[in-house]
Amino acid sequence: MFISFEGIEGAGKSTAQRLLADLLRERGHVPLLTSEPGGCSLGRNLRPILLDARLSGLSDRAELYLFLADRAQHVAEVVRPALESGQTVLCDRYTDSTLAYQGYGRGIDCEQLRRGNETATGGLVPELTILLDLPVATGLARAGQRNREEGTVLSEGRFDAESQNFHERVRQGYLELAGEEPQRFAVIDATEPPEDVSLQCLCAMEAALRRCGKGLE
Amino acid sequence: MFISFEGIEGAGKSTAQRLLADLLRERGHVPLLTSEPGGCSLGRNLRPILLDARLSGLSDRAELYLFLADRAQHVAEVVRPALESGQTVLCDRYTDSTLAYQGYGRGIDCEQLRRGNETATGGLVPELTILLDLPVATGLARAGQRNREEGTVLSEGRFDAESQNFHERVRQGYLELAGEEPQRFAVIDATEPPEDVSLQCLCAMEAALRRCGKGLE
Repeated sequence: MFISFEGIEGAGKSTAQRLLADLLRERGHVPLLTSEPGGCSLGRNLRPILLDARLSGLSDRAELYLFLADRAQHVAEVVRPALESGQTVLCDRYTDSTLAYQGYGRGIDCEQLRRGNETATGGLVPELTILLDLPVATGLARAGQRNREEGTVLSEGRFDAESQNFHERVRQGYLELAGEEPQRFAVIDATEPPEDVSLQCLCAMEAALRRCGKGLE
Repeated sequence: MFISFEGIEGAGKSTAQRLLADLLRERGHVPLLTSEPGGCSLGRNLRPILLDARLSGLSDRAELYLFLADRAQHVAEVVRPALESGQTVLCDRYTDSTLAYQGYGRGIDCEQLRRGNETATGGLVPELTILLDLPVATGLARAGQRNREEGTVLSEGRFDAESQNFHERVRQGYLELAGEEPQRFAVIDATEPPEDVSLQCLCAMEAALRRCGKGLE
């Protein structure tokens, strides 16, 4: 099963991913945890370029193609082989991030982005996308605290530095995407405690598996 | 005026670019010499990734998007500003390289590539494309000698290491592209001495300017 985690900065995607993985391991599964950008050899080379807030001259299109390059390589090198070997893949950010950030956030035409996603992934769509939703101010406050704890301004992501309006557009974009595909998306209130969020992730996963006619055990 | 130089490895693109620039300077012009990949800040970061023959696991799609990212940034940061300020731009490789290498060479659908080029460049097409044509064996022998002179195997490009068949497809692809747009392309025999090649480039440029209703002086 292929599960993606989406949401604005500070939504708690990697925490939810980790805790859901713990719950799955307790049930005897060995999930693969990965992330975009940076989940493959190419991505690790690109990640500093993509997340470097100082590279402010990067054009919107160049940024888009870097994300798609990372995605194409990540799917070919990591995600598809794991799925083919029967592993459950938990991926922190995937195609919907491109639609939310570059589409709703930056204003690039969503149809172009969908075509780019399709080409980059060879049409690989998650069976479940967990959207961790929370108010922008809460998310940015959390992300800011995380960045301070990690010690340096340099660790701030390229997007953390965007305006609150930008993140509002991204959040609304995510909610629209979820509304268009209610079967694939599970929208979870990310202001709740992490353990509750992870349990809701597990429930969403079980519901998705039932839809596919499979069970978790 | 925007002029691109195209051709297989070892065709002498950068030499022709340099010698044409000398001829233009003798006539009082100040051309901008640039190249893809690597002609902008982003490209200089991507170039080692793109040309590293050791990164053999790079998927065709990922490679494509890296070239498009480089192109989008290069056009926005370097080419368009120079053209807008009235400079003549001589660019070593541009959109036709993507069609020849990723399309004819690797077999990615050319319509997808044309859309990618269009999006990355905002529709910026050269007024003149100089195709330096020569037999593949001659080109690869020249490129091999250049790499040996530059001292290390590491300087070999990603494409230099491809099979002769691959380069044959690329060469034929270029000739087809030139056949489709005879107004834009000037096909020049790259086995002739560099000085003769550069004079033919100048003639092609003068012919292109006459077509646009402009003169060189």
